[in-house]
Amino acid sequence: MTAQPAQSLVYQGDRDLDELLRRDGARYDANGVRDLLAGVLAAPEGTDPDAWLDLVVRNPSPALRAQLAALKAELAARYDDGLKQRPSPERLAALRQELARRGLDGFIVPRGDEHQGEYVPSRAERLAWLTGFTGSAGMAIVLADRAAIFVDGRYTLQVRKEVDTARFEPRHLIDEPPHDWIAAQARPGMRIGFDPWLHTQDGLARLHASAKRAGAELVPTDGNPIDAVWTNQPAEPLAPVRPHDIRFAGQSAADKREQLAAKLAAEGFAAAVISAPDSLAWLLNIRGGDVPHTPLPLGFAILHASGTVDLFMDPRKLVPEVVPHLGNQVRVEPRAAFGAALDQLGQARARVAVDAATGPLWASDRLERAGAEVVRGQDPCALPKACKNETELANARTAHVRDGVALARFLAWLAAEASKGELTELSAADRLLAFRSAGENFRDTSFTTISGAGANGAIVHYRVSAATNARIAPDMLYLVDSGAQYLEGTTDVTRTVAIGQPTPEQRDRFTRVLKGHIALATARFPKGTSGSQLDTLARAALWQAGIDYDHGTGHGVGSYLSVHEGPQRISKVPNTVALLPGMIVSNEPGYYKTGAYGIRIENLVAVCEVEAPAGAERPLLGFETLTLVPIDRTLVEPGLMTPGEIAWLDAYHARVRQTLMPLVDPATALWLDVATRPIGS
Amino acid sequence: MTAQPAQSLVYQGDRDLDELLRRDGARYDANGVRDLLAGVLAAPEGTDPDAWLDLVVRNPSPALRAQLAALKAELAARYDDGLKQRPSPERLAALRQELARRGLDGFIVPRGDEHQGEYVPSRAERLAWLTGFTGSAGMAIVLADRAAIFVDGRYTLQVRKEVDTARFEPRHLIDEPPHDWIAAQARPGMRIGFDPWLHTQDGLARLHASAKRAGAELVPTDGNPIDAVWTNQPAEPLAPVRPHDIRFAGQSAADKREQLAAKLAAEGFAAAVISAPDSLAWLLNIRGGDVPHTPLPLGFAILHASGTVDLFMDPRKLVPEVVPHLGNQVRVEPRAAFGAALDQLGQARARVAVDAATGPLWASDRLERAGAEVVRGQDPCALPKACKNETELANARTAHVRDGVALARFLAWLAAEASKGELTELSAADRLLAFRSAGENFRDTSFTTISGAGANGAIVHYRVSAATNARIAPDMLYLVDSGAQYLEGTTDVTRTVAIGQPTPEQRDRFTRVLKGHIALATARFPKGTSGSQLDTLARAALWQAGIDYDHGTGHGVGSYLSVHEGPQRISKVPNTVALLPGMIVSNEPGYYKTGAYGIRIENLVAVCEVEAPAGAERPLLGFETLTLVPIDRTLVEPGLMTPGEIAWLDAYHARVRQTLMPLVDPATALWLDVATRPIGS
Repeated sequence: MTAQPAQSLVYQGDRDLDELLRRDGARYDANGVRDLLAGVLAAPEGTDPDAWLDLVVRNPSPALRAQLAALKAELAARYDDGLKQRPSPERLAALRQELARRGLDGFIVPRGDEHQGEYVPSRAERLAWLTGFTGSAGMAIVLADRAAIFVDGRYTLQVRKEVDTARFEPRHLIDEPPHDWIAAQARPGMRIGFDPWLHTQDGLARLHASAKRAGAELVPTDGNPIDAVWTNQPAEPLAPVRPHDIRFAGQSAADKREQLAAKLAAEGFAAAVISAPDSLAWLLNIRGGDVPHTPLPLGFAILHASGTVDLFMDPRKLVPEVVPHLGNQVRVEPRAAFGAALDQLGQARARVAVDAATGPLWASDRLERAGAEVVRGQDPCALPKACKNETELANARTAHVRDGVALARFLAWLAAEASKGELTELSAADRLLAFRSAGENFRDTSFTTISGAGANGAIVHYRVSAATNARIAPDMLYLVDSGAQYLEGTTDVTRTVAIGQPTPEQRDRFTRVLKGHIALATARFPKGTSGSQLDTLARAALWQAGIDYDHGTGHGVGSYLSVHEGPQRISKVPNTVALLPGMIVSNEPGYYKTGAYGIRIENLVAVCEVEAPAGAERPLLGFETLTLVPIDRTLVEPGLMTPGEIAWLDAYHARVRQTLMPLVDPATALWLDVATRPIGS
Repeated sequence: MTAQPAQSLVYQGDRDLDELLRRDGARYDANGVRDLLAGVLAAPEGTDPDAWLDLVVRNPSPALRAQLAALKAELAARYDDGLKQRPSPERLAALRQELARRGLDGFIVPRGDEHQGEYVPSRAERLAWLTGFTGSAGMAIVLADRAAIFVDGRYTLQVRKEVDTARFEPRHLIDEPPHDWIAAQARPGMRIGFDPWLHTQDGLARLHASAKRAGAELVPTDGNPIDAVWTNQPAEPLAPVRPHDIRFAGQSAADKREQLAAKLAAEGFAAAVISAPDSLAWLLNIRGGDVPHTPLPLGFAILHASGTVDLFMDPRKLVPEVVPHLGNQVRVEPRAAFGAALDQLGQARARVAVDAATGPLWASDRLERAGAEVVRGQDPCALPKACKNETELANARTAHVRDGVALARFLAWLAAEASKGELTELSAADRLLAFRSAGENFRDTSFTTISGAGANGAIVHYRVSAATNARIAPDMLYLVDSGAQYLEGTTDVTRTVAIGQPTPEQRDRFTRVLKGHIALATARFPKGTSGSQLDTLARAALWQAGIDYDHGTGHGVGSYLSVHEGPQRISKVPNTVALLPGMIVSNEPGYYKTGAYGIRIENLVAVCEVEAPAGAERPLLGFETLTLVPIDRTLVEPGLMTPGEIAWLDAYHARVRQTLMPLVDPATALWLDVATRPIGS
């Protein structure tokens, strides 16, 4: 349900606009609107291009509406943040000049922003601006006479395509890490800068140690040197921040504040710094849109043990109803006031919690310098946010029914069309988006769809582009990993389908992946068990055949928030966070044959209490599968499955069929009928 | 094969002994022998009470032999280290006086010694001497007006029996940890002492932080204050140290030194401090006997990157052939020279590795004060020691055949005798020891045998005593967990047998434990997998029934060394050490019904490479089961087992039968024939 965009006429000039704004009692004059639009254009457009109008005036006259749209169109046409072009050598030269001006011998350029999030606003794409590298993780280090860029295994090919490797020596982030490079390159007395907003203490520790060993020093900068030379750097993003209704949140923000404040007080804390925007969104029951695919309102907060909150966020991005929604226990202040508020905590010698994984060094340093006792622990919102309440779970089920309908329509369409050999990865992804967009309360995809045909399916983090866009044709496997943001919740589902006739090997591999998926879906485990303890269940059937997959088995998923959320995780990397009822995680084992095909079967599941069998001594947990999308039966080799596994698959398909059948069109119903039949029938 | 003890006559006096010693060209006069005997009596006697004679003279005359034995007997009769009596209140008072004299307000008394080992020599039993507590883990903290003792869940009952709780408040080591008590009790300005030999940096970190927060200070002591007031404290133990033959070690000490030295050099280290006696024993191919059940020679070493070793160990305990065995690349120095050697490394500004888990704070502090760069990492011997070479593995198989014979004889005897109801836990354990002692190259049990009938079997760390000694009678389960030290290797095996008729519940539980055991025994996993990743395989069948066990699933086992050895472990506690070919670990899931019965099935297994199935892409590892002892078929419920599990059990029993049958007496053979029949036959 997308709003009709405002009619875009020719822009009549600021004087005209001033008059229209004044007449409607708007918050800004034309100059103010231009400033606002700089931030609006620096945020993703989202599904409603006119959503920003709420920041100017409620119910604008048609004339004002049209002029605002025209101004936006004009500014958008001229908008150039320098991120679309391949970076010129001048950018690196300008940065080096700026460093010299500051007396620095080098500078560290991470990919992350102040919030250590997976998605960053365009303003924070400093690594991309400087080097051209667009991957989601990486780091560059610039010295006076040389520079290096560090990327992980996903990006070793991409970095050579995007980056001028004569200027930035490409290195492997894990095997040839930045601290080794620093150790080799740093000379005694060197001063290498870093932006303390963009690093955590832990993240910087090894670089610090390496520099120190080489006799060099890491120096925090006051302001980021790149910002000084990135002349057309985007503004801070200003996507509208709206209340997240209690019908979706299930618990009022006041309740959450009170509950967390009591816990802080009990643990002897005066306050906690909240720097993760999803925590902030959860705590205050608000949603924004400052980064792609995730309804995050970027900002910082201090949660006091009294239950009040200082929210540091540009007030311009709050739609009017947010102010009463936040109430008088939440003080909204500009981000520039954050430092002074930390100083106050310091002067009070307060004990303050800062998240060890995401808290910016800038904040903990400022607190400590001011006299506070900083305790690096876990963001107090992380665990309650991860444990969805009954309302959130009920909404998640609704979102998954809606997503199941879209996926069923898509897979039915694909089954009819793919064998013609005219579809491509891009056209299929577009079609899937169209089916999803037709669903109620759809707001966005929850990440860029992975649409991989044949060999592209074997690239775990494949991102289709015009250059790689492959045709979907017989006989190949097609892997599609996609998700949606509904007001009711966030989805994430992967299906692998055979176009035409699969090979026996493909059926063997698919069935082993499915066995792992079922082992996890049917696991029962005592309270206190972590996701790491369950990871092997999803791999054992693959291991027996001497194969494996090189990614985690499950990540936490937010409630109309981040599709990747902590603190729990199902992974062979140790994670000691116990799975708790209400946590939503993905269940996604896979298998990838390089150059040939990829297989992944992903459902979201919610941790739930399960009925204890007779004689049980410990409270047992298990998983409720949320995702409702058929699993391709033509890829299943029943001879490899146990009767119990077949029973699970048949029961799952019966549930999918029963739930979706009444909600789909006749053509999809025909397909669904076949796709959900029991194995062996 | 135990040596005949020397004939013990009346001791004729030192003058007589001096003459006999002189005549045989012994190393000592009577006074020297008396000094030596103080250390000999402070070590466990072992299986050969005359072993110590080798430290005095080779091939003594019968007269000298008799007089030495007589003197030992006389000193042994008078030997009183104060550990047999319940401690008098005077001990605590004397300690407090000593603390006051040193200007200390308190003192921390850990159970561990300088080597952080599981077993400590009697001299280091300071916690037992002060409090009476004899458990294998714990800590006391003494302040001027109060004191507390901290023990874990295993010992909460025992501590109340052994310790005067009016003087030592008993607290739970995990739930009410020492640092919380310090935080509550310490006052600003307090100086609380600790012996820096007995703590690692990590072990002390939280106590340090708590004391600091309370405004107090932890102060390292120079010498242990308890030693100053424990007037009859045993001497340093002096058990003979002997070469460990290359037939058993499989690799010469020179090779080991060279290999490790090259690695140290490559990593930029000048030296490594070796403080774990099992590392020292492995590195130098020597074995001693300073602590119970484990052939450890206590001492310290510095391994230089040149390949030479400084060994700090009382030279009196080396049998003469050790000196040529060590060769001229190993300098033997008294322990008192250790500090000066560390100072030398400091003066050379050397980079020195100290084991983070076991290295005494005293050593790293001394190094750092002297100017060295200390890197806390892993003992360089830990991983190569864990990965047994082909010779060690072949010997381990031999040791397990021998152990299997002893166990088969024991279980056959038990099957014949137990139903009469006249056996007790103690008499059964004694009989098992007798069967083992009859085996070639048997040196000791590898730990105190756990012999638990009925409800005692449910106490995981049960240690039978005269007070708890239960009768073994129908109808109950009997659990026996025991191990041996053979020159060829260390064993550890647990079997649970039904005396009379087991209940359906017992069969259900036993079978689930067995399913977990088999799941682990048959696991295949790619290189790089850690034991933590496999732990859940052993629990899943129990979890399905809502039950579990509260101990690890597997520990590393040494090669004629410690029965508990790292760095690998199969446990739900995260451990990132990858399992490597040659590592020996236990496979010991269990189930314990408090007040009723306990079940554990334990085999030792060796990590091995397994043949890759067709299409395999990754090198696969699996386990070779070493232990050869029948598993009680009457406790197996075949209806709960898969065909694959039954096939494993039948194949295991066929192997046990084939291997042991030719080696046992006719009565045992009859029993073995039945005990190893296929399930269902």
